[in-house]
Amino acid sequence: MDLLSSTPLACARFVTLKTTHGALPKSTHFLRPRIPTFSALMSPPSTAVLYENHGPPDTVTKLLELPPVEIKANDVCVKMLASPIHPSDLNIIEGVYPVRPPLPAVGGREGVGEVHSVGSSIQGLSPGDLVMMSPPSDGTWQTHVVKDQSFWHKIDKDTPVEYAATVSVNPLTALRMIEDFVDLNSGDAIVQNGATSMVGQCVIQLAKLRGIRTINIIRDRTGSDKAKEKLKKLGADEVYTQSQLDVKNVKSLLANVPEPVLGFNCVGGNAATLVLKFLRQGGTMVTYGGMAKKPVTVSTSAFIFKDLSLTGFYLQKWISSDKTQECREMLDYLLGLIREGKLKYDMELVPFSESHVALDKSLGKLGSQPKQVIKF
Amino acid sequence: MDLLSSTPLACARFVTLKTTHGALPKSTHFLRPRIPTFSALMSPPSTAVLYENHGPPDTVTKLLELPPVEIKANDVCVKMLASPIHPSDLNIIEGVYPVRPPLPAVGGREGVGEVHSVGSSIQGLSPGDLVMMSPPSDGTWQTHVVKDQSFWHKIDKDTPVEYAATVSVNPLTALRMIEDFVDLNSGDAIVQNGATSMVGQCVIQLAKLRGIRTINIIRDRTGSDKAKEKLKKLGADEVYTQSQLDVKNVKSLLANVPEPVLGFNCVGGNAATLVLKFLRQGGTMVTYGGMAKKPVTVSTSAFIFKDLSLTGFYLQKWISSDKTQECREMLDYLLGLIREGKLKYDMELVPFSESHVALDKSLGKLGSQPKQVIKF
Repeated sequence: MDLLSSTPLACARFVTLKTTHGALPKSTHFLRPRIPTFSALMSPPSTAVLYENHGPPDTVTKLLELPPVEIKANDVCVKMLASPIHPSDLNIIEGVYPVRPPLPAVGGREGVGEVHSVGSSIQGLSPGDLVMMSPPSDGTWQTHVVKDQSFWHKIDKDTPVEYAATVSVNPLTALRMIEDFVDLNSGDAIVQNGATSMVGQCVIQLAKLRGIRTINIIRDRTGSDKAKEKLKKLGADEVYTQSQLDVKNVKSLLANVPEPVLGFNCVGGNAATLVLKFLRQGGTMVTYGGMAKKPVTVSTSAFIFKDLSLTGFYLQKWISSDKTQECREMLDYLLGLIREGKLKYDMELVPFSESHVALDKSLGKLGSQPKQVIKF
Repeated sequence: MDLLSSTPLACARFVTLKTTHGALPKSTHFLRPRIPTFSALMSPPSTAVLYENHGPPDTVTKLLELPPVEIKANDVCVKMLASPIHPSDLNIIEGVYPVRPPLPAVGGREGVGEVHSVGSSIQGLSPGDLVMMSPPSDGTWQTHVVKDQSFWHKIDKDTPVEYAATVSVNPLTALRMIEDFVDLNSGDAIVQNGATSMVGQCVIQLAKLRGIRTINIIRDRTGSDKAKEKLKKLGADEVYTQSQLDVKNVKSLLANVPEPVLGFNCVGGNAATLVLKFLRQGGTMVTYGGMAKKPVTVSTSAFIFKDLSLTGFYLQKWISSDKTQECREMLDYLLGLIREGKLKYDMELVPFSESHVALDKSLGKLGSQPKQVIKF
């Protein structure tokens, strides 16, 4: 039996070899763990989705049992309840994302769980408390996570776990983008592409709560009529497929919605061009994703005469600028909306044992799917 | 003899038909002028480069003699001394610029002259004063311009006229772009393309005066070595032709110059991409021209992870936001630098009678040429 070197959780565990896709890993050159002192408080063993090397997530990840780790004075051991699979999680495993945990690493960066046991110095958290990881941090795709208390934010036990597991990345992105770039007033409008995404759904609802109208662009695909209906039920003012916008002047389609002053782009390519076309004089487009893997193309006259500004949003950067407290206040606000039924979005809960299927779905191998959330 | 309807100068003049390129205009349906009262103060007749319709500047402009106009109480009649030909002047004649004077119109929007006579209410300006047009306004390509006193800014008689004629568009653009977008400190760096342009030359010198380094990108062409030398003499820290930047990592070329925080783009296409490549994390690119007539292309990751912001600068918008006084203070500052020999740039002075050649040169029909300035 080999031993695992320090994981992103800064712990070392014994390893039971088993991959999520059946094949045994070829190389498992792990280091021996430090032997804990006899009296040390230990976590339970943890079953984890782990990768030793960067590569395609469906081939490099393995489901492994990691050995107990010491729970130090300021640590909290959390029995995970739910954790989502984000495109950025996949990019991190692929090694194409700026976040690069040391290898081997456990996947996932966001999630919720129940406090299992606490270190000797911990105050304010007790076994049974519902906590979410905030700020996001590596290694949520496992049954038991041990981390310093600064990573855990206690939340209301009435919060649906699938929402608590997902609120700190996408809904927070939507909230920050609405708040941070343009001074919006009730009656203003926002245009966004990728509107069926979790961020997109949140933008619609958070905007509506502020009296802000939304113009939403979605892909042409089977079921786009249903998708339109769904977004309109969430509060979308206008929803167009890209092909509907293949007209000379997209603004001629706007009936009662004013020209938008702010645009969100998570796609790139033509879908970004459509956002730019809708924007009013002096408008701003914020890019926060690049799902089409195509660049944004802008005429020089759009900068000079239409006075457009283009910028980007990267939640990780925002969080790392020492905004933990501000961040948690916003999460509480969002969780409050969720509990009141004012903020909802599509998810599919998947048992942990089926996490390889959730991974395949997240990779798009099974067509368009809602956000996959692992339930432990 | 036909009569000309109200020109952009809001005056009406008798017309002698003669085009800059020899051909007589096909249609000259001009209205009769209002007959001035017997005692009215009148301007001299004015010879002007005029166009009746939008189109190619070398075919739609004509050199015409316009009749005297009344000098009203608040008007100043200025005998023009010099006025430049800008690409935007050509775009206005072509009808592809947001500024659209009513037709027929006299070309040009910037220039300097000597006060010839003043209206009955004028104080602070007398015949013989040197005045420049500020804010820029239509109709400087003529020997005598009559406009409200608010358009004229009195300047030091020691100012070289070719500089006084050209300071309010390009040098002011350079100054505003350095001042308005990023809080620059001594030791910071700027990257720009189109560095041999008049704005580019001013950026180099105004930056150097502030201890700011410049990285300059120029076109590949015969004489690029000479152009490099020239820019370095003005104070450029680094000058590269585009082909020199066809390397994997442009930043590896920077020896002692820090990664730039601000970039200026007046070209578009690949030259804009090069500016973006040089910019440091969180940098800003300001587009103020599109000489290559190609769009700006940006990867979504440049927005998200490199945190780049792209925006535009349009002097006309800046000036029209009621900044006449602030603007004139900056012009005085720039003219001071010029008189001290701290700000200079290439120009070619062309006699008014040769304005059709200057137009051809400005249109690029005779290869790369310095800024053409009509001397009356």
